[in-house]
Amino acid sequence: MIEDKILLTESPDYKGLVAKITNICYKHQLNIINNTEFVDGDTHRFFMRTELQGIFNDDTFIADLKFMLPEGATYKLVPKQRKKIVILVTKEAHCLGDILMKNYYGGLDVDIAAVIGNHDKLRELTEKFNVPFHLVSHEGLSRVEHDKLLSEQIDEYAPDYIVLAKYMRVLNPEFVERYPNRVINIHHSFLPAFIGAKPYQQAYDRGVKIIGATAHFINNELDQGPIIMQNVINIDHTYTADAMMRAGRDVEKTVLSRALELVLSDRVFVHKNKTIVM
Amino acid sequence: MIEDKILLTESPDYKGLVAKITNICYKHQLNIINNTEFVDGDTHRFFMRTELQGIFNDDTFIADLKFMLPEGATYKLVPKQRKKIVILVTKEAHCLGDILMKNYYGGLDVDIAAVIGNHDKLRELTEKFNVPFHLVSHEGLSRVEHDKLLSEQIDEYAPDYIVLAKYMRVLNPEFVERYPNRVINIHHSFLPAFIGAKPYQQAYDRGVKIIGATAHFINNELDQGPIIMQNVINIDHTYTADAMMRAGRDVEKTVLSRALELVLSDRVFVHKNKTIVM
Amino acid sequence: MIEDKILLTESPDYKGLVAKITNICYKHQLNIINNTEFVDGDTHRFFMRTELQGIFNDDTFIADLKFMLPEGATYKLVPKQRKKIVILVTKEAHCLGDILMKNYYGGLDVDIAAVIGNHDKLRELTEKFNVPFHLVSHEGLSRVEHDKLLSEQIDEYAPDYIVLAKYMRVLNPEFVERYPNRVINIHHSFLPAFIGAKPYQQAYDRGVKIIGATAHFINNELDQGPIIMQNVINIDHTYTADAMMRAGRDVEKTVLSRALELVLSDRVFVHKNKTIVM
Amino acid sequence: MIEDKILLTESPDYKGLVAKITNICYKHQLNIINNTEFVDGDTHRFFMRTELQGIFNDDTFIADLKFMLPEGATYKLVPKQRKKIVILVTKEAHCLGDILMKNYYGGLDVDIAAVIGNHDKLRELTEKFNVPFHLVSHEGLSRVEHDKLLSEQIDEYAPDYIVLAKYMRVLNPEFVERYPNRVINIHHSFLPAFIGAKPYQQAYDRGVKIIGATAHFINNELDQGPIIMQNVINIDHTYTADAMMRAGRDVEKTVLSRALELVLSDRVFVHKNKTIVM
Repeated sequence: MIEDKILLTESPDYKGLVAKITNICYKHQLNIINNTEFVDGDTHRFFMRTELQGIFNDDTFIADLKFMLPEGATYKLVPKQRKKIVILVTKEAHCLGDILMKNYYGGLDVDIAAVIGNHDKLRELTEKFNVPFHLVSHEGLSRVEHDKLLSEQIDEYAPDYIVLAKYMRVLNPEFVERYPNRVINIHHSFLPAFIGAKPYQQAYDRGVKIIGATAHFINNELDQGPIIMQNVINIDHTYTADAMMRAGRDVEKTVLSRALELVLSDRVFVHKNKTIVM
Repeated sequence: MIEDKILLTESPDYKGLVAKITNICYKHQLNIINNTEFVDGDTHRFFMRTELQGIFNDDTFIADLKFMLPEGATYKLVPKQRKKIVILVTKEAHCLGDILMKNYYGGLDVDIAAVIGNHDKLRELTEKFNVPFHLVSHEGLSRVEHDKLLSEQIDEYAPDYIVLAKYMRVLNPEFVERYPNRVINIHHSFLPAFIGAKPYQQAYDRGVKIIGATAHFINNELDQGPIIMQNVINIDHTYTADAMMRAGRDVEKTVLSRALELVLSDRVFVHKNKTIVM
Repeated sequence: MIEDKILLTESPDYKGLVAKITNICYKHQLNIINNTEFVDGDTHRFFMRTELQGIFNDDTFIADLKFMLPEGATYKLVPKQRKKIVILVTKEAHCLGDILMKNYYGGLDVDIAAVIGNHDKLRELTEKFNVPFHLVSHEGLSRVEHDKLLSEQIDEYAPDYIVLAKYMRVLNPEFVERYPNRVINIHHSFLPAFIGAKPYQQAYDRGVKIIGATAHFINNELDQGPIIMQNVINIDHTYTADAMMRAGRDVEKTVLSRALELVLSDRVFVHKNKTIVM
Repeated sequence: MIEDKILLTESPDYKGLVAKITNICYKHQLNIINNTEFVDGDTHRFFMRTELQGIFNDDTFIADLKFMLPEGATYKLVPKQRKKIVILVTKEAHCLGDILMKNYYGGLDVDIAAVIGNHDKLRELTEKFNVPFHLVSHEGLSRVEHDKLLSEQIDEYAPDYIVLAKYMRVLNPEFVERYPNRVINIHHSFLPAFIGAKPYQQAYDRGVKIIGATAHFINNELDQGPIIMQNVINIDHTYTADAMMRAGRDVEKTVLSRALELVLSDRVFVHKNKTIVM
């Protein structure tokens, strides 16, 4: 059966790497639909994303790659198919609403397994779109206890990615380490400007002329994870912090859903604290 | 009772106009919260938008303006309150969906009286948000007959504005003249590039590097009405016409809802085939 | 003689302020070409920029304003005429070059009195455009000594504004206080991201997807002065710090010369650590 | 001797093409620094740009490619070295000025062989930068006669590319065919909007909210050649056609010099009436 798969290769760089990999594809009669590679100039690490079409024998294909490529190389061969996500929310509806709506009309091809909120406010909106909603309240719980309940609820769905759609709590290190490079957050500022709480108030206080939003993977430093996508809009002195927040919502939701699209189509490598987006 | 109202003045320009108008406001003990004026250099027409706060006696206030200002001047004193719209759609969900969603979470302060479709496809989505949906099919009808049915349905709601959220039919002149400067359309190109059908296909064929969307009032020339708002995104040679269409949706919906926000807050004057946005 | 002047008013806000000021203009038979006002919501401070045309009697006009307006109000009545600047540079040519070039072809209407460098590298370029160049080397001098020599050289020209066109040294507090809100700097990042040295290297290390530039007035906190103008460009993982620097130059020079245009046309109020740009 | 060269391949698409080409590179011990490929979905034409480093034997390398690749494939192996341009101008200085200035400080790595004007106005500016200026007046000449004189003057310098930096005359078909895909123009609108003369006046008349500029290769239909690069800026109702023209200059010059950078680094394929920019 003819299938579409994506080969993601990382390796220490050396001469002939592209030729070797594309040769193995050719030997397996796999057609290269698209091929993009990048070598990090500092770390001499090689990254390649190859869209393949043909009849796959995954085991012998990976075995051939392993045989030919140097130690330290890694390969992922992923089918081109829709991924599963769980979405975490608090009270703000715009990012969740945009993902639900896009999914509804076919603008974002993803399986939304569930939405989990630490408040109940977005249950109604979620259920309009026939997606299960779970309230996992943080009240009376320590952060570690709450995060544990969260991950138990998440793990029931075994999602590929976890999306923080304006989830307004910091997650503890155990939680983050459980899902490495699988938790995507939207921060409502142009990082690294205005890390932490109330970025629009910070932006207002500083008197900036542009505001933005940043989608990034979560790591264990607050708002320091690898950036996937950013965008901005112009503002002026007439914007209050509240007007910035209102205007910023369209940027936030667009940046988050565009970042999701990139991640869900296996276009994003994480390398140290950066992303390589192909 | 203290109220907020907006005074919209148009007049032939002459010396002292700002002083005369603001004086009358002062005489009526109305506080000027914000005042913006513009004089068109070609036509010497004066436009002013004044946000007022105080206790209004509308009749004597307008009478004072009429007494002081020259012939040919017009005034509108509108309360700062939510407007009513009817939305026309065909099959595409993204613009309608964004307006419904924003209205749901308080991001667009408007009363959506009804959605009317010439197809039934968006009924389910509309009804999720408890908004009435009417199917007014064009099948077997002439354009004039269909538009007549449409305006009968619209007029039952007496909306302030009619929003064409990807309504894919051209409206006939009688319809347009019935609602002067009250019908807002979103065109999926950066007008005046790619007027008419299939703008993304046209953009693909031309090989442009940027695509856009335009919100404008409808007049009787196709895609020639006064432009309210435009925005663009970068694309490259890897985008098919279909990929442009997918990427363009976020621009379309954002431009339309931002244009709506401007119109609904009485910030848009129409002067000949242009808008003045204050 | 009919002249064009700009009235800049600041005042504690109270009812009828616009009417009172525009009335005095009307009484003096001055035509209001353009009028923009803004009230800061936090501090209740009122700002108004009024473009006037007519025959001016400056003394009685200002006296009338003083009589009518509350204590704490300030007025500046400035003729619409070209301003004088002195430019400070180090070694990088792109911002200086853009100002010299624009001034040469009439794109920036300003009198460039002189260029002062702490290195001699940009003498040749400056003198191509028949502008005097002074080397004021910092070698062997303390910061205070060097800044003193700088301000002596600057003061010979009595400029309206001092432009730091990639002047790569921090100025000491005495220097800054000598020219309040008159020293304009271009910082090669999207402030407040990447304050201090080597912002492109910082941006590279953080892995941002957008870089920018910021024009601001200098105050006594490094890169904390009131922001006049900002702009950004998209980058991706293929940009080294050096490639960012190259790409960033066009943003820097455009932001600086656009900010200059705003300042030179008396459109920029400074209020606390922010600007109001009209 | 180790050299850097760029291999540009075009071919009918078929399975294994990337592998075959990269194999030949590997066989010749050439390191692939960067490799980008694209297949046009409509025409099934394959394009690949490969940055190579190593010791080249051009003849055997090309012979190997010819032997392995299908009929209809073409190869160019170009050394990574500065190209030579001749610039054509009329009276406006901003685009020429930006190229001269960037070249002066090392921001655009190109050999400016000469500037040719149909007016003498930009001689002084050109000669400031020690570049020869030739006046080739069109007065009293037919278009064909004038273009003949132009191309004689151009051919003395044997440039790689000809840059129209606001050259305000239409070139005749013989001229255009003499330099296929080698003449780069800047058009002061967001093509295909506002083709032809006075685009800013057209934009003003239409009341658009965004203006732009387009760099493109010249072909024999006015303003219809393959687009290399476009950019835009926001405007509003306060802009006269003249104000648009002033604001547009920074966009024009930036778009032209960025397009030049792409062309000069062999990143631009022309395919029918489009470009593929790698």
